[in-house]
Amino acid sequence: MRFTLNQLAALTGGELCGDGSLSITGAATLSTARPGEITFADSPKRAEKLALSQASAVVVPRGFSPPGLPYVVVENVHAAFQQIVLQFRPERPRRSVGISPWAAICASATLAEGVEIHPYVAIGDGCRIGPGVVLHAGVKLLDGVTIGAGSVLYPNVVCYENTIIGQRVIIHAGAVLGAYGFGYVTQADGTHKRSSQLGYVELEDDVELGAGVTVDRGSYGPTRIGAGTKIDNLVQVGHNCQIGPRNLICSQSGFAGSSSTGENVVMAGQVGVRDHVHIGDKAILGGKAGVMTDLAPNQRYMGSPCTEEREYFRSVAIFQRLPELRAQLMEMQRGMARLEAELAAPTSNEPTQRTSAAA
Amino acid sequence: MRFTLNQLAALTGGELCGDGSLSITGAATLSTARPGEITFADSPKRAEKLALSQASAVVVPRGFSPPGLPYVVVENVHAAFQQIVLQFRPERPRRSVGISPWAAICASATLAEGVEIHPYVAIGDGCRIGPGVVLHAGVKLLDGVTIGAGSVLYPNVVCYENTIIGQRVIIHAGAVLGAYGFGYVTQADGTHKRSSQLGYVELEDDVELGAGVTVDRGSYGPTRIGAGTKIDNLVQVGHNCQIGPRNLICSQSGFAGSSSTGENVVMAGQVGVRDHVHIGDKAILGGKAGVMTDLAPNQRYMGSPCTEEREYFRSVAIFQRLPELRAQLMEMQRGMARLEAELAAPTSNEPTQRTSAAA
Amino acid sequence: MRFTLNQLAALTGGELCGDGSLSITGAATLSTARPGEITFADSPKRAEKLALSQASAVVVPRGFSPPGLPYVVVENVHAAFQQIVLQFRPERPRRSVGISPWAAICASATLAEGVEIHPYVAIGDGCRIGPGVVLHAGVKLLDGVTIGAGSVLYPNVVCYENTIIGQRVIIHAGAVLGAYGFGYVTQADGTHKRSSQLGYVELEDDVELGAGVTVDRGSYGPTRIGAGTKIDNLVQVGHNCQIGPRNLICSQSGFAGSSSTGENVVMAGQVGVRDHVHIGDKAILGGKAGVMTDLAPNQRYMGSPCTEEREYFRSVAIFQRLPELRAQLMEMQRGMARLEAELAAPTSNEPTQRTSAAA
Repeated sequence: MRFTLNQLAALTGGELCGDGSLSITGAATLSTARPGEITFADSPKRAEKLALSQASAVVVPRGFSPPGLPYVVVENVHAAFQQIVLQFRPERPRRSVGISPWAAICASATLAEGVEIHPYVAIGDGCRIGPGVVLHAGVKLLDGVTIGAGSVLYPNVVCYENTIIGQRVIIHAGAVLGAYGFGYVTQADGTHKRSSQLGYVELEDDVELGAGVTVDRGSYGPTRIGAGTKIDNLVQVGHNCQIGPRNLICSQSGFAGSSSTGENVVMAGQVGVRDHVHIGDKAILGGKAGVMTDLAPNQRYMGSPCTEEREYFRSVAIFQRLPELRAQLMEMQRGMARLEAELAAPTSNEPTQRTSAAA
Repeated sequence: MRFTLNQLAALTGGELCGDGSLSITGAATLSTARPGEITFADSPKRAEKLALSQASAVVVPRGFSPPGLPYVVVENVHAAFQQIVLQFRPERPRRSVGISPWAAICASATLAEGVEIHPYVAIGDGCRIGPGVVLHAGVKLLDGVTIGAGSVLYPNVVCYENTIIGQRVIIHAGAVLGAYGFGYVTQADGTHKRSSQLGYVELEDDVELGAGVTVDRGSYGPTRIGAGTKIDNLVQVGHNCQIGPRNLICSQSGFAGSSSTGENVVMAGQVGVRDHVHIGDKAILGGKAGVMTDLAPNQRYMGSPCTEEREYFRSVAIFQRLPELRAQLMEMQRGMARLEAELAAPTSNEPTQRTSAAA
Repeated sequence: MRFTLNQLAALTGGELCGDGSLSITGAATLSTARPGEITFADSPKRAEKLALSQASAVVVPRGFSPPGLPYVVVENVHAAFQQIVLQFRPERPRRSVGISPWAAICASATLAEGVEIHPYVAIGDGCRIGPGVVLHAGVKLLDGVTIGAGSVLYPNVVCYENTIIGQRVIIHAGAVLGAYGFGYVTQADGTHKRSSQLGYVELEDDVELGAGVTVDRGSYGPTRIGAGTKIDNLVQVGHNCQIGPRNLICSQSGFAGSSSTGENVVMAGQVGVRDHVHIGDKAILGGKAGVMTDLAPNQRYMGSPCTEEREYFRSVAIFQRLPELRAQLMEMQRGMARLEAELAAPTSNEPTQRTSAAA
């Protein structure tokens, strides 16, 4: 499959600069594009990477005129490039499967119109599946699970009893909702007795969960993920947590039990949050941050235990030069000893004597 | 569904203080309870959070008399509150499914009395399933797996060949036991050759594993989890590890190969343990600790590489003030230079001159 | 099952030193071997652990003559011990299952000769499965997945649309390839709009992925794992990453989007790599390292943000003694104040006066 640059410029409504008869054989990112392919650079900051790219043409935003290759200027680089990619590699239409005869659905479950139930799905007693819901192959719903309209569960997602899922929720493969919380009471003999596990998980509307995410049920009530919050792969949310709306939680972060976040909190990867703390609205946490106390809203945090970001970086810069700092300290100790020796000696300020003392 | 406070007090054998005719519409935790609902406060330390709660009544322990709302005094707050929660939201009885016709069970497998095998379970050659075992939908057992009486495997758990599971073990959804260990011998040409993967995984009695946990098989023999040890979601246990009895290992912690722990070790979340080290009995590791050497028993550790907890916090406190410490050091360097200059100069201690030197 | 030491020496072509008539009942590692069993010590460095082992015999390399028990000297200790272990616990031959009638295979999929498709596998439209491929129970392939000759996917692996898998690839249970990348554009109202998810995942030949690994699809093209790279359990590879050939990535490490690595990079466990950075050939990263910038090749790194390994350890050593360093600094401040006081006072160096000033 190939298109001329003229065709691609017309497709995206862009303005062409260069040879429009050039034949383009594919579309790829800056670092992966090969000769004959078109790429995109969404900012003049990418000029350096673009110069190293093998691409034969590039889509750019207004005001960026890269030298050395033909380019198409557009308003929205990502939207235009998406159109081009779809031209070369059209999205595969997903066939409607309806309700697979190879799904195990309890008679007491209710399925709304337009659901798609793939093979090897198991649906327990009393589940309620809203209109247009897609359950991909191998999804397992224990008893009493409710799923709102338009939600999609990818293969092998597991929902324990009484999980509540809102509308337009997306859950990626292998995520597990509603396993027992990690709560034990240690007995006098050192054994651990499981505490109450009577709660459930609730995902509000427009939540998205990545592959392999785990969200434990609450002890007595819900562990809740707020509307519009997006959670990346392999994140752990402990029992009783109340995650606010529109958070962005990156991969491999974890919440111990009973913590909460405000609105629009952002966490980079591998952040850890201890139990029973609250993170304020719009707080931004850097990668690997460790949260051990409540955090004020509207601030950036780094480090473990985390502190305000700029302070953290100042401390880190010194940490990385600690050997130097220590050497300075030792040098000063020697200088101090020298001064004290001089002062202790009968008053004499002859330079020669000082030099010998320093040697 | 609603109950009077009198009814709930009678149910729990508690002592009521306040209006017993009050109608209660639900039971929820301090932070999630709404007006009309009852909550619990298991310690006077919760007084502040209770004052902020919207709950209309509260269950408290003896000796805690919260002002401003009716309360029920009981011996065991959690046991009493569990009773109340079950009153409002009775546990759904799990139906016996017996052995689903939609399970793929090799003829050479042996199933004891009273097993529950849900749909889409696959059981390999020579597996032995003990009495009362529950295999939820989608559990996959490769050949030669043994499971002791009363154990429960939640949906999509995978056990590789020859896994041995004791009695009363609980394994949450998506956990994987017995994948190959991460052991390779790098060849002269830079490729990696897999080393021996002849071992298996053994879980002793009363072990509990969280969702998405991975435990790799030993190289030649068992990777073993000791009796009564509880492991939280997304924990990784590498090949040949020997985890002791009654450990508590929180979410996202990881053990590289061939490490071991004593009895009643406790690890908070995201701890990392390098290969071939031993952690002594009752050691307690804080969140994100990094273990790079053997650890003595009965101590608390923090940091990476971890050190004794109090020492760690002393160092961290200074780390967070390193810019200040460095400023002090530089100030002293200036002071020192001043002193040296004075001493080098012809003896003169007039204050005016010193002031000008410092300016 | 039991063998004489003579039999085991003959089996391995080894040289026996000690009582060959000794009856051996099993084979196990140094720390797990019981009396009557044989173990191995692959280096004289293991002498101490061997002395503590309960084993009754040991396999050793040439040049290591352990005292106190019979031993078998061989050229390759691991190869010989593997032979012995297989004697005691022969590998269970995996039965050919052919194509299970309990697999859901779209008519448009093409299956080469000699494939093994276990129960509850789902294969989407247009998938192409190469010769000798094994899909264990519960594997789910969405539409358009390609798998090269001889690859093995363990139970419950999920591949999203258009995943490309090379030859001789091994993917352990529960891994997920091709879920949406974590890319959103935050709107003026604080909601998050998913960005383009048009790409796919490509694993080159001889890649191995551990249990629960997640690799997200690229935004427009491939997220790629290079030939011969081995990835341990629960690792996250974000969208658009280009992992080089023959890397070794240990458990629970994570790559944010659009990062890349060179050849033969090694990462210990729980490493985090931010987005858009490159790690040079043969770089070695210690456990829990945090990568926030490009890294030069052929170096060892530790810490977060990571620095050159030796520098890091020097800084850490001082970090752990910061309270001491601070005490020294404060002692010097007092000494300095003393000196300044002396210099400010009318010249007098009598020791008695200085002592009183220091008190």
